[in-house]
This record gives sequence, C-alpha cells and structure tokens, in this order.
Amino acid sequence: MNNFEFYNPVKVVFGPGEIAKTGIEAAKIGKKALLVTYQEHSFFQGLIDRITLLCKNSGVEVIPFFEITANPLIGQAQKGVEACKKYGIEFIIGLGGGSAMDAAKAVAAGVKYPGPLWGMVASRHHGTSFNFPHEALPMMMIPTLAATGSEMNCCGVITNEATTEKSYFWDPCLYPKVSIVDPELTCSLPPYQTACGVADTISHVLEFYINGLEDTYLNNRIQESVMRTCIEYGLKVLQNPNDIKARGQLQWASILAQNGISQPGNGWTPMHQIGHVLSARYNLAHGASLSIIMPAWMKVLSHKRPDRYETFAVNVCDISAQGKTKQELIVAGIEFFRNFLQSLGVPITLSQVNIPGSEINHIIADAVRISFGPDNMLSCVPPVSPEEAKNVLRAAI
Amino acid sequence: MNNFEFYNPVKVVFGPGEIAKTGIEAAKIGKKALLVTYQEHSFFQGLIDRITLLCKNSGVEVIPFFEITANPLIGQAQKGVEACKKYGIEFIIGLGGGSAMDAAKAVAAGVKYPGPLWGMVASRHHGTSFNFPHEALPMMMIPTLAATGSEMNCCGVITNEATTEKSYFWDPCLYPKVSIVDPELTCSLPPYQTACGVADTISHVLEFYINGLEDTYLNNRIQESVMRTCIEYGLKVLQNPNDIKARGQLQWASILAQNGISQPGNGWTPMHQIGHVLSARYNLAHGASLSIIMPAWMKVLSHKRPDRYETFAVNVCDISAQGKTKQELIVAGIEFFRNFLQSLGVPITLSQVNIPGSEINHIIADAVRISFGPDNMLSCVPPVSPEEAKNVLRAAI
Repeated sequence: MNNFEFYNPVKVVFGPGEIAKTGIEAAKIGKKALLVTYQEHSFFQGLIDRITLLCKNSGVEVIPFFEITANPLIGQAQKGVEACKKYGIEFIIGLGGGSAMDAAKAVAAGVKYPGPLWGMVASRHHGTSFNFPHEALPMMMIPTLAATGSEMNCCGVITNEATTEKSYFWDPCLYPKVSIVDPELTCSLPPYQTACGVADTISHVLEFYINGLEDTYLNNRIQESVMRTCIEYGLKVLQNPNDIKARGQLQWASILAQNGISQPGNGWTPMHQIGHVLSARYNLAHGASLSIIMPAWMKVLSHKRPDRYETFAVNVCDISAQGKTKQELIVAGIEFFRNFLQSLGVPITLSQVNIPGSEINHIIADAVRISFGPDNMLSCVPPVSPEEAKNVLRAAI
Repeated sequence: MNNFEFYNPVKVVFGPGEIAKTGIEAAKIGKKALLVTYQEHSFFQGLIDRITLLCKNSGVEVIPFFEITANPLIGQAQKGVEACKKYGIEFIIGLGGGSAMDAAKAVAAGVKYPGPLWGMVASRHHGTSFNFPHEALPMMMIPTLAATGSEMNCCGVITNEATTEKSYFWDPCLYPKVSIVDPELTCSLPPYQTACGVADTISHVLEFYINGLEDTYLNNRIQESVMRTCIEYGLKVLQNPNDIKARGQLQWASILAQNGISQPGNGWTPMHQIGHVLSARYNLAHGASLSIIMPAWMKVLSHKRPDRYETFAVNVCDISAQGKTKQELIVAGIEFFRNFLQSLGVPITLSQVNIPGSEINHIIADAVRISFGPDNMLSCVPPVSPEEAKNVLRAAI
C-alpha cells in the first residue's frame, strides 16, 4: 500500500424518504440553483416537480437545465456554464445517474475555469497538456441510480464530441457539498440500467482487487464486501424492483466503491480506460462496457496475479476450495462471475452490442492515445501492453 | 438499517514517514498551537522535540501542555483551556493515544464552551442535563497508538474525577482538521498497549456486529473486514513490533472501525458503557476493560442473536461449518475469539485485574446511573437489563 491522503467532506443524507430534505439542505447552500439533468427526463418529471417545489418552499429558486445525454458532452457542459452566468447561479443541483452528476460537476467547475473546458480533462494521463480545475460552484447531488458513486467523490467523466475522447477530471473542489441519497428514487429504474449500475459498482473495486498494489489486506476485504453485496442483492432488485432494503444496500455499496475508502493509496483503473473508449466510440452504457471487459480481462490476465483471483473465487464467489487445484478455483471464480453478469442481463461480449472484432485495433489505438503512459503501457500491477489489451478484447468477441 | 447522515471531513495523511509533514500541515491551520500530551512522556521525548522543530521550521510556535493521564480527567482539560486563553492559542495538537487526543478535543471545545466543562459530557444518555459542544478550536491529531480512531471521528471520552463518571462528548465541531497517521510512531509501543489497541479496535465493530440493527449486510461485511485484519496482524506485530506493514494495516483498521463507515445508521455501544465504568472505577486500560467484557458478553447473550454469532464464527474466525450444528459453531467462534484475546496478552477475566465478584453490583449500579435509559435498559438489539449485565460480569469472574 502506498502512503496516501484521505479527504472526503461530502455530507451524505441517506435513506428512503430523505428526498423530503432537499429544500432544507439546498437552502443551506444558496438561493439560486441550476438543476442539471437529462434532455429526456419525462420518466421522472414528477421528481423534478417535487424537487423544484421543495426548493421553492425553502426559498430556493431552481433554473432548469435539461440538456444532458448519457455519456455527456463537453459542449453540453459549456452551455450549462453560459446558463450559470446568464442567471447568476449560486450552486448546482445534479439530478440523475453518473452522466447527469458528472455533467453537473463540469458545469460547476466550468464557471470558474479559465480557458476552454476540455482543458480540465485528463487526456493522455501522463502528459502535461491539461490542468484539473481548482475552483467550483457548490453542488448538491441527487442520484437516481446506484452506480458511479459520483455523489460522494471528486471525479467526473466527460466526452469530447469533436475527438470522441472520453476521460476524467478530478479535484477536491469537485466534492459535492451534500448529496441526498434516497434509494426510493432508484426503484423506477429500468432493469437494464439497474444491472449496468451493479456491473459498474463491481468494476470500481474489482479494478483494484485484481490490478492494484500489494499489501492491501484490509482494502481487499472491503472490496470483497462491496462485491459480495452486489452479488447478494443484484438479482434481488431485478426480481423485485421495489425491494427498498436491497436498493439501499446496492446504493451504499456503489458509494463506498468510489468514495476512496475501498482503495486508499491505490490508483489504477485500467479496465475503465478501455471501457471509456467503448462508450465514446459506440455510445455504450458505461456499466455495459465494463461488463464486457471484466470477464475477458480476468480470463486473459489471471495468470499474472493468481493469488488475487484465487481469493476472488473463495471470498467473493463463495466457491469451496475443497478438492480443487488453485487453477481450477481461479477458473471457477471467473466462470461464476461471468454467469452472474449474464444473469443480470448485461452484455458480456462485443458481439452482443454489435461491435465486430475488426474494431479492436481502432479501440486499443484510442485507448493508447488517451490513457496509456509514455512507456506505451497501461498503468496497473503489472502494467498491460497494447497487445495484451487487444487479447482481452479478442477474448470478448 | 436506519436512515443516516454521513459526514466526516477529516484529512488523514497516512503512511510511514508522514510525520515529516507535520510542520507544513500545522502551518495551514495557524501560528500558535497547544501541544497536548501525557504527563509521563519521557518515552517519546524525541518525537515531541521533532514535532516542535518541524512546526518551528514552518513558522508555528508550539506551547507544551503535558498534563494528561490515561483515562483523562475533566480537570486536566480545564487546565488546558486556561493555558489556551493565557497564551492566545489558535489550534490544538493532540499527540498520543485516545486519552491524549480525547483530552485535546475537550480542551479545543472547552475554550469555546459556556459554563463548566462537564456540562458537555453525556451522562445518563437519555437525559437532558448535558449540552454537547458546538464550537471548538481547530485540531491536528498525531496518534501514537492504533486503537480509538479518535483521529478521524468527532467523539471524545473523559472522566469526572469528582464522581468517577466516565462518558463521551460528541459533535461535528470535534472533527480534527487534519491527522498525521504515521504507523512508524506506533512501533515503539509496549506489547500490552499494542494488544489493548487491537482489542479496542475489534470492540468498535463487534459492538455493532452483535448488538446492532438488522438489514445491515454491507456494514456487517465491513465490520468483518476490520476484525479479520486485527486477527491477521494482531499477533504479528507482537512478534515483530517493527513490522511496519502490519502496523499500517492495524492502524487503518482502527480508523475505519470508528470513523462512521463501519456502522452508519447504527448507534449502540453497550459493552463500552460497562467498560467505561471499569476504567473509571479501577483505572483500567480502555482496551483491557473491553477484552474482559467481550467474550463474557458473547457467551451470555449469544442465544439472543444466534445468526450474527454464527456468521462471526465462519466469516471472522474462519471456522469451518462442516459437521457442526449451529450451536457448536457459535460456541467454537466465541472460544476462538477468547483464545485469540488471551494470546494477545490482554486480560479476559475480572480476577486477572484484581476486581472481585463482590464489585459487580457496584459496577452495574454505576452503568445504570450513567448509561442506561429511562426504561432502565441498556440500548442495543435487543436491550439488556441490569440483571443480564450482571450475568455478563459474573461470567467474566
């Protein structure tokens, strides 16, 4: 484990019914908010009306900004910045899944950012051509999806429509001031989005479990806790979408997966870097890009970290070690996990989402350009070469 | 799981060698600090000198206040408040274990507290005769012991020497601004203190594991992660006190056990309430009071939550369920845990610390007076009566 700084000042107001506190919490931040959410928002118009009314009753004016799409674009954030300036906005409310919350972060930071907004986004991570933001308007997040954990971290992901580059921006100024995390808001989510969220949550800790540093005993146990929670409750919420206890467990898991507590002193998300390319090139849901990559990655690269994959099989997948060789255990764990993802209804192959094998070279070329290091390797333990990354995608055809 | 608010804005600077950042971090807070630590501090005079020099080199003046004892007293905190006023102190540095850090918190809050300091401490928890503090000087903590997690929470425990009442005070104003958590500082700790710290860490999550609310799947898994880390590394640091990786794992475990992440929406620490009486009446180390209570509590009360004790045996103690009845598993888990505590060298009976059985009525009378509710029960799931509490101590003779 590396030395680290842990700092996460977000206040999370958690539990069924907590949406009722939106107005009270908003009024603590300011009097005029930009409500950032999706272009297509008819499915939760009632929620938008309720939030607007709660704010109004607490003396907070809400200006609508309904311009965001899945895999949000830097141009959308730019429009939001202009709206903030036009209306004298004091703070931002991000409502929706990771796309809406990340766009809200880009708007909040964009208002204070000198120069073109894309300058705040990491591209070619080891380069020096970008500058993370250092100031932002205060934010309140209201997630309607358990997935990215954006409501309790200081990171966002956004796409440059001109270059189809998708990458992240990060700074402590991007911590929301408060997040209203009400699992009831996730109950009306379609099964596919729910399942993508589960896959995304798992990926956020699996990345570190199989690709992170050594000497991280406690962190690995916490990562297992998050993954076991996803496996325990993932199918339950698909069978009974209104199982509010299960929704709550999944949502708290998605937050702990990405608020820094599961992987302090550890910084590698190599699978995400390839996933971002899939999302940006083919407008694939973030969780779906990861559900395709994860089992293939594990199959191709497990021989490099056999101990981690062995404990994955036993501690996460609950597979008995009795009568199995280490290799058999590893294979059984990956197989169990692949089947679990399949039962969730998320894609586990490129062909399921109509991406032909002939695209693999283009995909990895993009990943190399955006995310590989100056040594032409993808950062993780051990580092992954472009050829290995191609082999992963070949195993996912 | 209840609804909850999670908020913890402490910046933790973690890792071997991080003590070197003390001056830089101190200078971000102010120019004049009161260094609160033990009366008996000769064993880390070198550390005190280093901290003082690091601060001086960063332009921060350090005024010594070396008046604290184990199980710190409200009168000591009062003296610290007077020193703050006399010297125009801007912030507090707490150096040491839980006693020093909690006393530092009492001083920091005491400077701003209207009325006698004991008024800020909860006594008879359900009463209205106390008022938690709401303002405090900023604080930096430098723990030299992995145990209470005081460096990343907003709670302190202190004793009233006039009444021998020991109880807690709590408020978000008591979050340290920054904590320098350098596991190297714990390497010189005597084995007994190290072992008491391990027992204390376990107790902070075991309380909730066996006495907390239902529907806390993820939290229970995280509690198991903390306990497994203590079991994995507890004996290792006793065998090799300079095992810095093990020290680091134990210290991060002690922090996660008590920073709110292991038990959000859950509020019961019944064993601690009895432990505080043992410490206050007989000046027993905090961890030792808990190592005596825990196995006896489990033995006497396991029949009330058999499912929790069963998963404790399997998931924490790694006992195979094969060929065992549920009851046999439960007994084996408690036995394993009792033996583990014994191998750490902490006491597991009252007689080991020379407390005769004839004291039990007095001990529980104190606990009832200070911590039981208006219904004369000790809050937990399910609540514990005075007679049951006496039975626990009888099982610990």
